[in-house]
Amino acid sequence: MYSKNDVAKRPPMGWNSYDYYNTMVTEEDVKRNADFMAEHLKMYGWEYVVVDIQWSDPAAGSLCPQVQYVPFTRLCTDEYSRQIPDPVRFPSSKDGKGFAPLAEYCHKKGLKFGIHIMRGIPRQCCHDHAKILGTDVTADQIANPFSVCKWNGDMYGIDCTKKDAHKYYDSVFALYAQWGVDFVKVDDICNTNFYKENPYSAEKEIEMIAAAIEKSGRPMVLSLSPGPAVIEKAWHMEKYANMWRITDDFWDDWRLLKAMFERCEVWQKHVGNGNWPDCDMIPVGKLGYGWNKVSRKTNFTPDEEITMFTLWSIFRSPLILGTELPELDERTLSIIQNEEVLALNASSHGACQVMRNERQTVWASCGEGCPAKGMDVFIALFNLSDEDGEVAVNLSDVPYLNGSGTYRVRDLWNRRDMFPVEGDAELSLSVNKHGAVLLKLSRK
Amino acid sequence: MYSKNDVAKRPPMGWNSYDYYNTMVTEEDVKRNADFMAEHLKMYGWEYVVVDIQWSDPAAGSLCPQVQYVPFTRLCTDEYSRQIPDPVRFPSSKDGKGFAPLAEYCHKKGLKFGIHIMRGIPRQCCHDHAKILGTDVTADQIANPFSVCKWNGDMYGIDCTKKDAHKYYDSVFALYAQWGVDFVKVDDICNTNFYKENPYSAEKEIEMIAAAIEKSGRPMVLSLSPGPAVIEKAWHMEKYANMWRITDDFWDDWRLLKAMFERCEVWQKHVGNGNWPDCDMIPVGKLGYGWNKVSRKTNFTPDEEITMFTLWSIFRSPLILGTELPELDERTLSIIQNEEVLALNASSHGACQVMRNERQTVWASCGEGCPAKGMDVFIALFNLSDEDGEVAVNLSDVPYLNGSGTYRVRDLWNRRDMFPVEGDAELSLSVNKHGAVLLKLSRK
Amino acid sequence: MYSKNDVAKRPPMGWNSYDYYNTMVTEEDVKRNADFMAEHLKMYGWEYVVVDIQWSDPAAGSLCPQVQYVPFTRLCTDEYSRQIPDPVRFPSSKDGKGFAPLAEYCHKKGLKFGIHIMRGIPRQCCHDHAKILGTDVTADQIANPFSVCKWNGDMYGIDCTKKDAHKYYDSVFALYAQWGVDFVKVDDICNTNFYKENPYSAEKEIEMIAAAIEKSGRPMVLSLSPGPAVIEKAWHMEKYANMWRITDDFWDDWRLLKAMFERCEVWQKHVGNGNWPDCDMIPVGKLGYGWNKVSRKTNFTPDEEITMFTLWSIFRSPLILGTELPELDERTLSIIQNEEVLALNASSHGACQVMRNERQTVWASCGEGCPAKGMDVFIALFNLSDEDGEVAVNLSDVPYLNGSGTYRVRDLWNRRDMFPVEGDAELSLSVNKHGAVLLKLSRK
Amino acid sequence: MYSKNDVAKRPPMGWNSYDYYNTMVTEEDVKRNADFMAEHLKMYGWEYVVVDIQWSDPAAGSLCPQVQYVPFTRLCTDEYSRQIPDPVRFPSSKDGKGFAPLAEYCHKKGLKFGIHIMRGIPRQCCHDHAKILGTDVTADQIANPFSVCKWNGDMYGIDCTKKDAHKYYDSVFALYAQWGVDFVKVDDICNTNFYKENPYSAEKEIEMIAAAIEKSGRPMVLSLSPGPAVIEKAWHMEKYANMWRITDDFWDDWRLLKAMFERCEVWQKHVGNGNWPDCDMIPVGKLGYGWNKVSRKTNFTPDEEITMFTLWSIFRSPLILGTELPELDERTLSIIQNEEVLALNASSHGACQVMRNERQTVWASCGEGCPAKGMDVFIALFNLSDEDGEVAVNLSDVPYLNGSGTYRVRDLWNRRDMFPVEGDAELSLSVNKHGAVLLKLSRK
Repeated sequence: MYSKNDVAKRPPMGWNSYDYYNTMVTEEDVKRNADFMAEHLKMYGWEYVVVDIQWSDPAAGSLCPQVQYVPFTRLCTDEYSRQIPDPVRFPSSKDGKGFAPLAEYCHKKGLKFGIHIMRGIPRQCCHDHAKILGTDVTADQIANPFSVCKWNGDMYGIDCTKKDAHKYYDSVFALYAQWGVDFVKVDDICNTNFYKENPYSAEKEIEMIAAAIEKSGRPMVLSLSPGPAVIEKAWHMEKYANMWRITDDFWDDWRLLKAMFERCEVWQKHVGNGNWPDCDMIPVGKLGYGWNKVSRKTNFTPDEEITMFTLWSIFRSPLILGTELPELDERTLSIIQNEEVLALNASSHGACQVMRNERQTVWASCGEGCPAKGMDVFIALFNLSDEDGEVAVNLSDVPYLNGSGTYRVRDLWNRRDMFPVEGDAELSLSVNKHGAVLLKLSRK
Repeated sequence: MYSKNDVAKRPPMGWNSYDYYNTMVTEEDVKRNADFMAEHLKMYGWEYVVVDIQWSDPAAGSLCPQVQYVPFTRLCTDEYSRQIPDPVRFPSSKDGKGFAPLAEYCHKKGLKFGIHIMRGIPRQCCHDHAKILGTDVTADQIANPFSVCKWNGDMYGIDCTKKDAHKYYDSVFALYAQWGVDFVKVDDICNTNFYKENPYSAEKEIEMIAAAIEKSGRPMVLSLSPGPAVIEKAWHMEKYANMWRITDDFWDDWRLLKAMFERCEVWQKHVGNGNWPDCDMIPVGKLGYGWNKVSRKTNFTPDEEITMFTLWSIFRSPLILGTELPELDERTLSIIQNEEVLALNASSHGACQVMRNERQTVWASCGEGCPAKGMDVFIALFNLSDEDGEVAVNLSDVPYLNGSGTYRVRDLWNRRDMFPVEGDAELSLSVNKHGAVLLKLSRK
Repeated sequence: MYSKNDVAKRPPMGWNSYDYYNTMVTEEDVKRNADFMAEHLKMYGWEYVVVDIQWSDPAAGSLCPQVQYVPFTRLCTDEYSRQIPDPVRFPSSKDGKGFAPLAEYCHKKGLKFGIHIMRGIPRQCCHDHAKILGTDVTADQIANPFSVCKWNGDMYGIDCTKKDAHKYYDSVFALYAQWGVDFVKVDDICNTNFYKENPYSAEKEIEMIAAAIEKSGRPMVLSLSPGPAVIEKAWHMEKYANMWRITDDFWDDWRLLKAMFERCEVWQKHVGNGNWPDCDMIPVGKLGYGWNKVSRKTNFTPDEEITMFTLWSIFRSPLILGTELPELDERTLSIIQNEEVLALNASSHGACQVMRNERQTVWASCGEGCPAKGMDVFIALFNLSDEDGEVAVNLSDVPYLNGSGTYRVRDLWNRRDMFPVEGDAELSLSVNKHGAVLLKLSRK
Repeated sequence: MYSKNDVAKRPPMGWNSYDYYNTMVTEEDVKRNADFMAEHLKMYGWEYVVVDIQWSDPAAGSLCPQVQYVPFTRLCTDEYSRQIPDPVRFPSSKDGKGFAPLAEYCHKKGLKFGIHIMRGIPRQCCHDHAKILGTDVTADQIANPFSVCKWNGDMYGIDCTKKDAHKYYDSVFALYAQWGVDFVKVDDICNTNFYKENPYSAEKEIEMIAAAIEKSGRPMVLSLSPGPAVIEKAWHMEKYANMWRITDDFWDDWRLLKAMFERCEVWQKHVGNGNWPDCDMIPVGKLGYGWNKVSRKTNFTPDEEITMFTLWSIFRSPLILGTELPELDERTLSIIQNEEVLALNASSHGACQVMRNERQTVWASCGEGCPAKGMDVFIALFNLSDEDGEVAVNLSDVPYLNGSGTYRVRDLWNRRDMFPVEGDAELSLSVNKHGAVLLKLSRK
């Protein structure tokens, strides 16, 4: 039997085109990043290659940088109101092939292929009264003219109460299955508090999409955006999706990174078993080319990058790189190739915040296996303050230590063993401002 | 020089198709009501004949009664993105004549002709990238894809910051001037608090429309809907419009009528000189045919009707009948033909609430001329309670009486003289529940 | 080392005076209920006897039923601004003995003793500039004149930023320890969204109280009211308290009971290890004597009572009876003496909602021990609809079943074994409207 | 018959202690300012001397500058729960004389005397169950423990539904009448939107106070604070009070001054006939001594001061100086002694905003008399921008000009005649940034 949780047994790892290419990524760009991933990152677990927003829009970027999304653009669609790739940017998609050739390109390299879509159906198809595959209704009969996204004007929401409305999503995901899509990031669907006054069918559209994926016969990771997801709806997310954004768009800004600790506190009990609350893409290396035709370096300091990767890893967020992969420098590569840290993301459990104040935060989790003696315990110490200093935790507050006995301590970022500690001692380490230390404690 | 205040020197009086015909009024219906008005009401000041919403929509009413406005309907438009009448319902509009023949029909009978429009430009024209007269921009370049009405899906708002955006409104009102339109009710534009989270250009669109009317060369009353208008914006309304709705849709329900007293209290200082805060259409006689293909009688009792006409008259609201005129009965006709009361609406001034509590309200105003001795004073006594009883006012609280001296008292609804009163006496009259008494006091 | 989680290793079970006695419970009333508990309920795990609100108020009830809390009443206090019991209602408290004699009465019967308090310090003490034990500050120097409860006027909140402010709480809980108090229900402190515009120190007062309990040297269960607790603050609750109300006041009304399913869905991952999200007191038997000097029977039907006890048990809410215990009838007694169901409350784990729609809800949890083969699985089927009918669940959706194999099924409320089922079958049972069935599935 | 409108036939002019003395003004300070007013300002119309907040508080200022209002201070009161002056700061008030000697001091100089109070009754009196004059109720029986001000902790609101509640206000204003008080500024009563979630009896307390003044037999100006007053409640304000704050506290900050133009736009139709929407005190000269024991000069530039006085004058706000009068410099004195401008405040009418944009605003009003030919017209041109520049207005947009004919123009601030203008010309003058020009146009 199909279980959506089996599709993402560990947090998805990969690359997404948005942070570097904005709305303008091309087939060549995707291939270049896929090539790099296959050669340098695949062996560490990185596998998803995701084409983000506006791939069906021939006008994408034409009003840049003043306007990100071209109002009333005419998206490329097939006769059944389904978006197809812009053939100029994605030449292999011509002749009805869609993303099948690009997906196959990735698959041949052992990678997986993903795409972004907006919730709903293209507005133009509704006003044109276009057809819906396998039905005798037309687009205007299943859409809601008042269910509009507030930042992108391409789509109308689907009204699930209308006859055969769900069949539109069925037809869309059947097409994606045919293309070989492995991952779908659905946008304008995650934060159910966004449109208080408007009709908003997020929950129902999520349910239609989850059913459409199951009917498609092809496993696809279902990723929901944008955040912040509403914690009261956690049960619903866990029932239907694999990952959901727990913050608004994340970028290379310390204030956003610091705020993520609050979000992870709130969501910490909802991680695991195919459910991966999502801290959003990781903006490292070169960024922003698609905004100004010139890229810039991430604003994060090396210490902030360590903090980011440490939190994402111990919390077990999906790890989706937002950058131009071939331009990554050696230091950044060494971070994303640190298999000791990545193992934590892939297979630890029980991550929880041990303490948090304005100055520091401590998280802990355990390694695989039963929480009996002998299990490894991970401890992350974060210095959130604006000055270098000590970060301290009383080990008896760490839930997975048994309080007594001696532990070996390994510094995972520096890949070196440190001093042994007693399980009821206070552990205090010097940590750079905005930086982090990630430790593994093992029974002696 | 053109002054918008000169276009409506007194509160407009007339008829509107909505309360009876909903979205489905036809040319024949309009003519039938115009005929009746010319014959029976014109001599009392009734003159405007107004075609309300969806006159350009060929599908109007096709989903009735489940759905009032057909989603994604294709409105009739000319090549310049301007709505034109549905030729089936308005046969005389064919061959590019628009509403000119119907306007001329009214004009020949000494009446004036008005139409309803929604703020903005048809959505379909934006997605079709249709032309805008006198410009080289297209509809998609001047509309805002996020500025949508929350109850009617026909239009997108105009973004005044876009090049030549105002020229669309110029072209629209030039067409209306050519047709001979005398009155335009613009909808989805009056209550500026409706769309807190959405882009909403009400103020700027009002300004563009006011300028377009002035440029058109034809005087047109500018009426804004829906309410409740926001009192903080009163100055702006008074600068650009002639009438604006001070409540949400008004219907034949006592609770709505009772609530109107609060709205009139708030707006009382903004009446006069071309500015007419609007209590909305008057639902008397037969109503609602266009909802269920069967009409119903107004729910107002005769006493409630007197209360409504008394308040609308002393407050000087526009008087726009919402009903099928030829079906009015004699009693109702006698109300709307009472020239002593209508004179109050046409030419009194200084209307103000003297007192209001849960049980009763008293209003007063004065007749024409300087507030020196000899001026008539109008006093309206309202019994808001659910029981017949006395309504009392201390005449020394009425601002326009000089406190001493004797006044003759005339009952305007019953057209009869009553007892004389002293200007500092307490006046107490028996008034039916939900009823009103309207008096004129004149110096002996 | 003291751990607040050890104080409540299972959900507290007991009795609270409020639902029957309102603000007016007396020492005799408490003893009568304690006697009954010791004799009939203690052997099933019921142990806490809790005196609810206004025990220090000599005027309590004097304005009943018009006014619940007497404005500006003068509470009984000692010289250090600490409330002491009203000696008229609690005669044994005289001569500075406080609640020590009553606590001892309970302890001798093997029961535990609890009290209710409002967050803060009596207003009268602040205006009198009364002393604070062990400090040289006075009450006015540590209270916040703007931090007032919105429904009870007795107290001002403590301002933790003031010198020695926390010592007031230290002195209060030291006194309670001296009395022998085992359980403290702190009111006006749980829902941190209540006072958006007012200064509100809930979080800081919770922290001061938790520290004061630890310093007191006596373990006390810390219970926070009123709800609904804010899920974003779950981590803080879990760090400092043992139980917190997840709803507003719960009474014997089906709508409130139905709404509890939503609250339990939201909080299900925060149950266990000394943390017990609290569904509030259980209003069965006789209720409400303290409001009108006459008691009434609970409005819950027998089926609704089963639904309530089933949900509270599988969710592992604290079980606090709100009723006059000696007046319980046999049927109700048989419910609260069902040790097969109570075992579920005391020691199951992993309770989760399997599905929920408007008509039915299904929950599941497991028995003690590792989730390996052989573990018992509990399944609760709820019929939320207003008609008797089938409640169905696909057992493959229940997380703790391994999907294959045969299970023995026992009906816990009726204490009888039923048919065996396959682990991947659909289970469908007839359930009364508003009723529930609680099953235990064991490997054959 | 008493009419509250007759008490303030023109906008009150005077001095208030707050802006200079904060909570700490003394009898000597008041006398010093009264002396100056009598000698230098009285002949220009300045007459009110107002003692602002905390005159009954012996601890006032003792926590300054950290805390403005001492929490839980014990106010000086008489046996009937009425505040009396602190005898240390107001020595002449001893022996039950209250403010009578200070009021008499002012009266002898031809000035008027005013005081500030908070809405409600001292909290301490409620907790002490103190007496209320002429009743057998006590303070706790008429106050509402939940009706508390959010910035000053002295009082509880009066609950008008309680027996004899209004008699407390009667007793308070009887005392003020006995003292010879001419002006009462009631605080925490004006903005009815402040306490959305709390019980708030502003409207009812205003009514009780207005009635108490009338019963006292002594005319007193009723001034309400703080703002912004809610425009929907204008009718109520006009019925019961003489002046009400239309903004939050106003200080010497250009942003606040610029924002006042929006407030005046909103309130312009509610000025006159005993009703004076209040732009708040005028912070010129030396300010703030009572905050830091050292005074500072106003932050307003000379141009901003002209803008302020021009707006307050043409709008007809009350003119209440907030400063130490004896320290005013010659330039400022010349502003407040400009009788040509003050005449505008005292007796013009029909002030209205002619236009407003981000860069400039124009106001107009007329002189006394009928709006027939020969009436003077005042025009104020404001440069709101941050650069010197032209401010222009088309005179045909000014409502009180008849459009044609020639006018003499006088510059009121510079007391000089300018060029003549035609009534339909565009008038354009150079105005300093943040500055204003105030003109009088008279028929030639």
